[in-house]
Amino acid sequence: MGERQWQSKPRSQRRRGPQRDLRRESTDDAVILYGWHTVTAALANPARRIRRLLATENAIRRLAEDGVTLPITPELVRPDALAARLTPDAVHQGLLAEADPLPSPDIEDLAASGIVLVLDQITDPHNVGAILRTAAAFAVAAVVTTARHSPEATGVLAKSASGALELVPIVTVQNLARGLTALKERGFLLVGLDSSAPDDLAAIELRSPLALVLGAEGKGLRQLTGATCDRLARLNLPGAIKSLNVSNAAALALYIAARAMT
Amino acid sequence: MGERQWQSKPRSQRRRGPQRDLRRESTDDAVILYGWHTVTAALANPARRIRRLLATENAIRRLAEDGVTLPITPELVRPDALAARLTPDAVHQGLLAEADPLPSPDIEDLAASGIVLVLDQITDPHNVGAILRTAAAFAVAAVVTTARHSPEATGVLAKSASGALELVPIVTVQNLARGLTALKERGFLLVGLDSSAPDDLAAIELRSPLALVLGAEGKGLRQLTGATCDRLARLNLPGAIKSLNVSNAAALALYIAARAMT
Repeated sequence: MGERQWQSKPRSQRRRGPQRDLRRESTDDAVILYGWHTVTAALANPARRIRRLLATENAIRRLAEDGVTLPITPELVRPDALAARLTPDAVHQGLLAEADPLPSPDIEDLAASGIVLVLDQITDPHNVGAILRTAAAFAVAAVVTTARHSPEATGVLAKSASGALELVPIVTVQNLARGLTALKERGFLLVGLDSSAPDDLAAIELRSPLALVLGAEGKGLRQLTGATCDRLARLNLPGAIKSLNVSNAAALALYIAARAMT
Repeated sequence: MGERQWQSKPRSQRRRGPQRDLRRESTDDAVILYGWHTVTAALANPARRIRRLLATENAIRRLAEDGVTLPITPELVRPDALAARLTPDAVHQGLLAEADPLPSPDIEDLAASGIVLVLDQITDPHNVGAILRTAAAFAVAAVVTTARHSPEATGVLAKSASGALELVPIVTVQNLARGLTALKERGFLLVGLDSSAPDDLAAIELRSPLALVLGAEGKGLRQLTGATCDRLARLNLPGAIKSLNVSNAAALALYIAARAMT
């Protein structure tokens, strides 16, 4: 498991806004995690408090075979009991956990090194989950999202992240322009992705600490977000389509940035 | 719009297998296209026969403002009439078309140049759609898929492809190993992506014509698929997670291959 690159404050000292936001759509404040990678990564994360672990007979056997340490006794359930709690297309692979949301660090807690991804109101949970997964693959230090117009760190997002929720801290900010300014004050170079920018991301000078800023598909970066960036850059795409699915764009941007900084 | 890099045979001379497959889940053989980019790209494609075009008042106005040439008179509908034909999360943007499926070229029709993507039983339509979109962005010559265990070129896949269905020919094969052998005989270098391969894709010698072969998430390349490739390679991922969403993996592989070949 990746080491967390930030110091978490005790919950009593934390601002309530981001915490409240993570809970918005749950019946209470529980996060729902399902699928093999998603649940086993949560079980292996000492910072994640698991409240209930529901598992099928097959999954319990596989957990034992794989030597997975269980912080809580699993409750044996039939596969259809899991399916009943999820949407019809959800692939639960015999595992579902109810857990506490993870603490969300403050921007001031982030180390001024490496790469941070900033998501400007990207709403699709599949896309945000895939971005988190790719962020973990590129050892991204944190993902910064807006408290509003961002999906909850639960369910489909958690499944698409395939365990990355346990590896990449998510910083939730009320005001993105202020969050970007805070990153700039900490020495981050802010580069916004914009398909109409004249410069190719691979051709501009990148350095650590770097914040890569991505907007929602269609809408792109909001005006103030773009204006707050130090540079805007596009991905160099030789074909007839000039914009990518946002998680694909994030993957290319991270690859280019990681190469430039090594 | 991109030029098609293959010659389509008249329909009467074509094998029926792939055609039948494209129709499998439709009430008849109609393809459903919805969303602004998806439908306007189809309207602009002379090879795509549109049977019906349903549009809201707003969409009809926007089509006129954008000067879109309509090959068929649109039927004015209310937004809820479109929503009723789609899943609740579908974003139709006021446009829905019923159309003929596009002809699927044979492997022998592909020019022996550039990059071809081969998908080994990737089943998720969002992922295949995103892959097609990225393939169009990298001017990929064709995408080869299996007739079985591949999603239909309609609906969610078409929406995720964001118009790329009109730009990237899809070759459907009954037997992938035979399809790969046919590509090899035509001079293609076959490189399979495998996260456990020792070689980094960016470090091996790539040349045109190139076929990049991707397997399903979790399962990866089937044994015979991997064995038929000339080389296996992985993506170099520095973080704790070593495998990506398959469309993100495709995007990185295409970027690396496109750079290596220019």
